[in-house]
Amino acid sequence: MDDDAKLRLMQNRIIKSYAWQRDIIVPLSKEFDCTVDELEELFFDLLDMNSLEALHGTFKSAEYICLYQKLNADLRLCWFIDTLEIIPYEEGKNLRIKLIDEINSGKSYEDALKEGKLELFQLLKKEAEN
Amino acid sequence: MDDDAKLRLMQNRIIKSYAWQRDIIVPLSKEFDCTVDELEELFFDLLDMNSLEALHGTFKSAEYICLYQKLNADLRLCWFIDTLEIIPYEEGKNLRIKLIDEINSGKSYEDALKEGKLELFQLLKKEAEN
Repeated sequence: MDDDAKLRLMQNRIIKSYAWQRDIIVPLSKEFDCTVDELEELFFDLLDMNSLEALHGTFKSAEYICLYQKLNADLRLCWFIDTLEIIPYEEGKNLRIKLIDEINSGKSYEDALKEGKLELFQLLKKEAEN
Repeated sequence: MDDDAKLRLMQNRIIKSYAWQRDIIVPLSKEFDCTVDELEELFFDLLDMNSLEALHGTFKSAEYICLYQKLNADLRLCWFIDTLEIIPYEEGKNLRIKLIDEINSGKSYEDALKEGKLELFQLLKKEAEN
């Protein structure tokens, strides 16, 4: 077996792992409307061995950041906090962290968002009373 | 008519305007599961006259920022651009701006996102070829 074949074998071991397939390959291939093989080839071309090994961890932390940004947008917090300054930054941050914890414990994004909107309304009422 | 009553009248003129109702009051009262009156009272309590007058403009620009962040999250660009560095920042920015323009021209967020995912796949393939 030559070096290229060995490298490909090692890359394959990583990318075929259960966690990679479940969290990255299968959902992304659906989003990109391509086959699993096509996406795996793409990752082999784009990433070296070290990156492949490290990347499942980075995917998880990037997912957290993405969720935080998405809640920021869907709750219009950039308006209420940054522009209007009627919700304190810390309150908005705590609300998002709480909702992300609930999503990570199994709650759907939609349910968490719905709850978040109602809690945001309560926060606004509290601010109006001050 | 005393000063308080005059102020309330002027506040009412702003908040009852077509653009305020359509863009802010009606959608937010649905999200917060409250009445239009309740939300209007809340804004009167939270915002002074100057803020009320200026705010429709800030809402529109905050909406742009929110959309940009949401696309960033839904396209997982914080992973592809910031962590993996396999999509150049400018390419990701241009993709988002293009999608936001399409949404502002009437395309639904879901359709724009679907298209964005396919374009992201093409960007990744282009990067893999380089």
